[in-house]
Amino acid sequence: MPARRAKIFNDPVYGFVSVPKGLLLDIIDHRYFQRLRRIRQTGLAHLVYPGALHTRFHHALGALHLMQLAIETLRSKQIEITDEEAEAVCAAILLHDIGHGPYSHALEHTIVDLHHEELSNRFMAAINTELGGQLDLAIAIFTNTYHKKFLYQLISGQLDMDRMDYLNRDSFFTGVSEGVIGYDRIIKMLSVHDGELVVEEKGIYSVEKFLMARRLMYWQVYLHKTSVVAEQMLTHTLKRARELAENGDVPDASPDLKWFLSQPKSAQDVNDPDVLSRFARLDDHDVSIALKFWMQSSDQTLRYLSTCLVDRKLFRLEWHQHPVPGEYKYEIEALVTQHAPQDIPLNYLIFTGSASNQAYNEAKEPIQILFKNGQVKTISQCSDVPLYTQLITKHFIIYPKIKTQF
Amino acid sequence: MPARRAKIFNDPVYGFVSVPKGLLLDIIDHRYFQRLRRIRQTGLAHLVYPGALHTRFHHALGALHLMQLAIETLRSKQIEITDEEAEAVCAAILLHDIGHGPYSHALEHTIVDLHHEELSNRFMAAINTELGGQLDLAIAIFTNTYHKKFLYQLISGQLDMDRMDYLNRDSFFTGVSEGVIGYDRIIKMLSVHDGELVVEEKGIYSVEKFLMARRLMYWQVYLHKTSVVAEQMLTHTLKRARELAENGDVPDASPDLKWFLSQPKSAQDVNDPDVLSRFARLDDHDVSIALKFWMQSSDQTLRYLSTCLVDRKLFRLEWHQHPVPGEYKYEIEALVTQHAPQDIPLNYLIFTGSASNQAYNEAKEPIQILFKNGQVKTISQCSDVPLYTQLITKHFIIYPKIKTQF
Amino acid sequence: MPARRAKIFNDPVYGFVSVPKGLLLDIIDHRYFQRLRRIRQTGLAHLVYPGALHTRFHHALGALHLMQLAIETLRSKQIEITDEEAEAVCAAILLHDIGHGPYSHALEHTIVDLHHEELSNRFMAAINTELGGQLDLAIAIFTNTYHKKFLYQLISGQLDMDRMDYLNRDSFFTGVSEGVIGYDRIIKMLSVHDGELVVEEKGIYSVEKFLMARRLMYWQVYLHKTSVVAEQMLTHTLKRARELAENGDVPDASPDLKWFLSQPKSAQDVNDPDVLSRFARLDDHDVSIALKFWMQSSDQTLRYLSTCLVDRKLFRLEWHQHPVPGEYKYEIEALVTQHAPQDIPLNYLIFTGSASNQAYNEAKEPIQILFKNGQVKTISQCSDVPLYTQLITKHFIIYPKIKTQF
Amino acid sequence: MPARRAKIFNDPVYGFVSVPKGLLLDIIDHRYFQRLRRIRQTGLAHLVYPGALHTRFHHALGALHLMQLAIETLRSKQIEITDEEAEAVCAAILLHDIGHGPYSHALEHTIVDLHHEELSNRFMAAINTELGGQLDLAIAIFTNTYHKKFLYQLISGQLDMDRMDYLNRDSFFTGVSEGVIGYDRIIKMLSVHDGELVVEEKGIYSVEKFLMARRLMYWQVYLHKTSVVAEQMLTHTLKRARELAENGDVPDASPDLKWFLSQPKSAQDVNDPDVLSRFARLDDHDVSIALKFWMQSSDQTLRYLSTCLVDRKLFRLEWHQHPVPGEYKYEIEALVTQHAPQDIPLNYLIFTGSASNQAYNEAKEPIQILFKNGQVKTISQCSDVPLYTQLITKHFIIYPKIKTQF
Repeated sequence: MPARRAKIFNDPVYGFVSVPKGLLLDIIDHRYFQRLRRIRQTGLAHLVYPGALHTRFHHALGALHLMQLAIETLRSKQIEITDEEAEAVCAAILLHDIGHGPYSHALEHTIVDLHHEELSNRFMAAINTELGGQLDLAIAIFTNTYHKKFLYQLISGQLDMDRMDYLNRDSFFTGVSEGVIGYDRIIKMLSVHDGELVVEEKGIYSVEKFLMARRLMYWQVYLHKTSVVAEQMLTHTLKRARELAENGDVPDASPDLKWFLSQPKSAQDVNDPDVLSRFARLDDHDVSIALKFWMQSSDQTLRYLSTCLVDRKLFRLEWHQHPVPGEYKYEIEALVTQHAPQDIPLNYLIFTGSASNQAYNEAKEPIQILFKNGQVKTISQCSDVPLYTQLITKHFIIYPKIKTQF
Repeated sequence: MPARRAKIFNDPVYGFVSVPKGLLLDIIDHRYFQRLRRIRQTGLAHLVYPGALHTRFHHALGALHLMQLAIETLRSKQIEITDEEAEAVCAAILLHDIGHGPYSHALEHTIVDLHHEELSNRFMAAINTELGGQLDLAIAIFTNTYHKKFLYQLISGQLDMDRMDYLNRDSFFTGVSEGVIGYDRIIKMLSVHDGELVVEEKGIYSVEKFLMARRLMYWQVYLHKTSVVAEQMLTHTLKRARELAENGDVPDASPDLKWFLSQPKSAQDVNDPDVLSRFARLDDHDVSIALKFWMQSSDQTLRYLSTCLVDRKLFRLEWHQHPVPGEYKYEIEALVTQHAPQDIPLNYLIFTGSASNQAYNEAKEPIQILFKNGQVKTISQCSDVPLYTQLITKHFIIYPKIKTQF
Repeated sequence: MPARRAKIFNDPVYGFVSVPKGLLLDIIDHRYFQRLRRIRQTGLAHLVYPGALHTRFHHALGALHLMQLAIETLRSKQIEITDEEAEAVCAAILLHDIGHGPYSHALEHTIVDLHHEELSNRFMAAINTELGGQLDLAIAIFTNTYHKKFLYQLISGQLDMDRMDYLNRDSFFTGVSEGVIGYDRIIKMLSVHDGELVVEEKGIYSVEKFLMARRLMYWQVYLHKTSVVAEQMLTHTLKRARELAENGDVPDASPDLKWFLSQPKSAQDVNDPDVLSRFARLDDHDVSIALKFWMQSSDQTLRYLSTCLVDRKLFRLEWHQHPVPGEYKYEIEALVTQHAPQDIPLNYLIFTGSASNQAYNEAKEPIQILFKNGQVKTISQCSDVPLYTQLITKHFIIYPKIKTQF
Repeated sequence: MPARRAKIFNDPVYGFVSVPKGLLLDIIDHRYFQRLRRIRQTGLAHLVYPGALHTRFHHALGALHLMQLAIETLRSKQIEITDEEAEAVCAAILLHDIGHGPYSHALEHTIVDLHHEELSNRFMAAINTELGGQLDLAIAIFTNTYHKKFLYQLISGQLDMDRMDYLNRDSFFTGVSEGVIGYDRIIKMLSVHDGELVVEEKGIYSVEKFLMARRLMYWQVYLHKTSVVAEQMLTHTLKRARELAENGDVPDASPDLKWFLSQPKSAQDVNDPDVLSRFARLDDHDVSIALKFWMQSSDQTLRYLSTCLVDRKLFRLEWHQHPVPGEYKYEIEALVTQHAPQDIPLNYLIFTGSASNQAYNEAKEPIQILFKNGQVKTISQCSDVPLYTQLITKHFIIYPKIKTQF
């Protein structure tokens, strides 16, 4: 991009993020983007890591910053990126998460029936219309229909700027120092070969470390026992609310959340501008305030679960290597039945399921290493250690702490 | 405190905070304390510094951590602190902000008519009752009725652990690196002389730096133009809501916020347990959701101000060295009148006032320096540079950005 | 240790290191310990990482700091460590590297024929004599003859404080952020089971990350191409000097280095106090100044190698997966012969050899994980990913850069 | 500069420093520049702050990095800087300290009689000749004879990149966190007005903080008691060595140091290429090894002072607000005479003198603040607090610790 006066955002992770005036700043000022200020990046993880309150807004700015560094690096290696392409790929990374709503996982499995990618596309289209088509190229890159594939890979790939920022940022705000990645080194090692993003040979160890950090952040943060418990509890709370709504007794909530609770899923048409507007008005506060409202609900189940969440009386989780055996679940049921209030159905007190993570799936898209002699190999062909290519699945059973929770 | 199994909290600022099981952990688990998870430390400053989302909960834990370091240091200098005193002073620092509600400044000047200190006292008393009197000593220290004055000074003094943590923490989360203080050095230099907290000679420069950082954080963060604008806009929004309520048209909000909006101030009796419970249920979410509700209000003023806040269309602020002259204000009024919607009264569009800060008020309570020869002087007597003892007052006028805001 | 007035050392890695007055400070003030100020921790790595100038002195202080944290943690878990034991294990960690000389690797393979462990023992014995036997317990722990084995493991084990500090410190000063380890988390998870050091279940990921970081630091720093080249060049320079000395032409150097260059190895008896004193006077400066002296040597080989090292004209290294084949070496020899000055023998211009690293050798000593139910497993039994247990060996050939180096 | 393949240096302070291949890398590879690897930035300060071992080499790289940021910022504000100017100003900042020798202060007052600026000029001229005149523009900027004055001010001014890096770097390696400066914020606020470097209004607090940090670093690090003591002891050691040399008994040392010790000052002609070469071969090692040699000197004074320095048995310093009164000095002399070895003259045991610092001298060159309305004021005209414009002078008397030092 040509040098241009910039607005500077403070970011404890990178110091500063400079945003040149013009298209990029217009995107940030848009109300659809501003709403990302009210949506946390890591959902309920702050119940384990009290510092993890950072938002998707800040993450998008951070990813923009890394994109600027990546463009600078690639250009210094004589990879051509025109000013238009640079602006477009920056716009695309800013918007990559625009389709996210609050607590995506919990809501999407319960009351929201809109596909995440479609939402992104619809939001981008809406903003593009308002901006008079300035996002055409950004959208082409984002949807991988532009001919320079590496631009798409910077947004969505094994080593994209999204991933690079969120690992870094989540690690920073949780305080899990083991998740720190050498993002600057990886970015400095990026290059393009045959139109695809590659990493120079010297970056092998940093890439290995990146995969390690990714796996670690999964089990230490995103799939931390308490994160999983809280998310499951929220999911079941919303399920209960929906159940009540379907029975004609819509629990109190903000107007927009109420709409999602009570409308049949068939009414949730992403192409309906009114639906899009409603979704765009939802944020973390709607869910938080609903939980507080529901602490007074006449339904004991809804009341119990909401109170547990608000006062942070969280259930216990046990990990199992295999699906939880029927007889064990039966034991737990017996125990819980004995102590729990009669009116709360067991399926709102005991949850089973599983969580999986695969830090690196080479089959899907390999990380390519470029050697000095021009040769290209996948990382697993040239790393002398086993990588985290295995899909790890853990099974859980979640239930109340008998002594303290009733 | 005797060594005891501890619960560990992650804190990106200090790495870890260890809380021994027992009284301190019981306090943290209490619902009154858990609510501090939903109250941000720096109110609306995140509109300028997007990382500043940290809560009073995390701050209280951080201050506890520093208190543990301070106790360790003082004991290593043969200052007697019994295990009971150590636990009590830790409990007191945990609870020092317990009386805070959401956006204290904005609410206290508009709809809440309860005194902050009284609230703290009532909350502590309530928790103490539930814990069977275990907080007696903590309360004595907190109210400065205990004979070891330095314990009180660690909680509330020029160099208390509250201040030490919040400067540090706010600096960390805003990314304003100039606010970083050498808290560990100051704490290592603490000692007690004639029953009062003093700083050893070697710590002079660090104390000077601390006063500098404090002043800097005030003008760069707490009294940053945008922070002041946002707070003033919120204050006037709440004022308007109250005005409407008093006219019998209570704007929609959560039940507890509604209560505060609509009850006469005389009904707000801190000794009434119901009032205390209501206040304890208020947090940032109640205010945020109210603003979203009010974006649909039939009152144009309320609607306008709320929308500006939610979509971050903030007014402009001008600092003046002297109170804004009448003629200048008149000019601004003429300008605004010309462009603003007719139905919005000017006093909801143009705000004047002032902000002050004095980094160090020696008259109120001096910082005492202990020399090797046993002599004690105040910092200003032994610093070879001017300190920030001056009260700085700046005057502001705030009004909409004409071009973009109507 | 009982609280006692302390001397505070600044450490950019941990902030401060407090050393209580008494035995520990006496050790630090001893001239044998002070000499560690003049011996770099990472030898010639500063030729790759210009910040890596930190010394064994600072490392020993850092390891002491971590030991203090470990003692505090273990005591908080009701593991008994008496004040005497605490002081002794602290003394032992301070002294763990006392036997090291300058550029250990390079010197030990060429001109110094003293065993490192024996040197440590002799130094400790000498200091112990001067301190009137105050180190008896420290020495017992250090030599693993004390009955509490976990104290020994804190000094020398898979997760000892030595390793923990050097990974951390080397990572800090090189700027290789991928080497950062969550030392505080691992230490907080340490416990003792059946008299042996174990890590609590929650620390599994951190231990995995630690092994990863260790492997990464090996290949990125300690066995970095340029580090290996510089060390090999220094080794061959010293070899040449010794060769000249054996032929009666002792190259100029400091008196003590000259002694080591010229004495037959049989004269190097670690039990001879004069030999110990001479060794104790050697530090990095003796080697650096010798290289500068040798830039003027009449021997072309010595002159050439020394000049290359001082002016940082380093040879090239190629890694091979298998021992470098004879015919390839022959090719290189032909090439070098063609360009190099006639008087320098080829074995001082072309070096072959290998470097190995095994991040974790479970067979030798396993890392034990303690589960909540009291069970103990080795880390590889409970980690769901492959660990770095493989011995990685790489072979090298090193030779001058033809174009620029003659 | 046009994008060009770069060599990357690791720097724990900034992460990475990229140096484009070509002139800048050629400068770095030059033996005169490489020698800066062997000259510490902060002399003997590592005796107080064990981490402060960083070199002038690393500092020059860091200053280059900041210069690159500054150029980027200024260009983004439409200040014209051609590619040639950019490269030249980068070359100039790399070379700004090229005239420094080891322990400049101590040597310059005793045995070296060459002017620092002249040395710089001579070194630059010599390198320029070797590089075929490529440094012409750099030298013009460096000597302030180029018409764009702001380029000179980036190298040598109140807010130059030299100062910015050394404060930052010294703060980093000493661990004195209070010295941290918001260098990135100040650089982002730089602009040019009427051909001179100015700071935009928003940067006022950061500049104030910068002056504060500068003052703090002076008294906490550069003029720290122990730093001053060590430097004074070194100065007097060298003085003694010179005295002996003048009496015909040249103490042993490296050939080049010996030359400086024994030649009459008249022989030290900076224009004599042999003198320049000799000076260029001096580094910290020559001094360190000389001290070790002198521990065996037959002169008791030289032996005593050298041993004290090597084994870190440092004298005591007392600060006085006024010049040390004659009678007090007399008292100290009597005390020392009583305990010190007879053969050491008192003027080698007791030193008096003074140290001064003025953080900001507006009279010499003001820091200019640019307001939005185009107005320019000096920082002291627009800061609402007193700045550190006062010249602070402290007087010292230094003498041995009687109990432990004889």
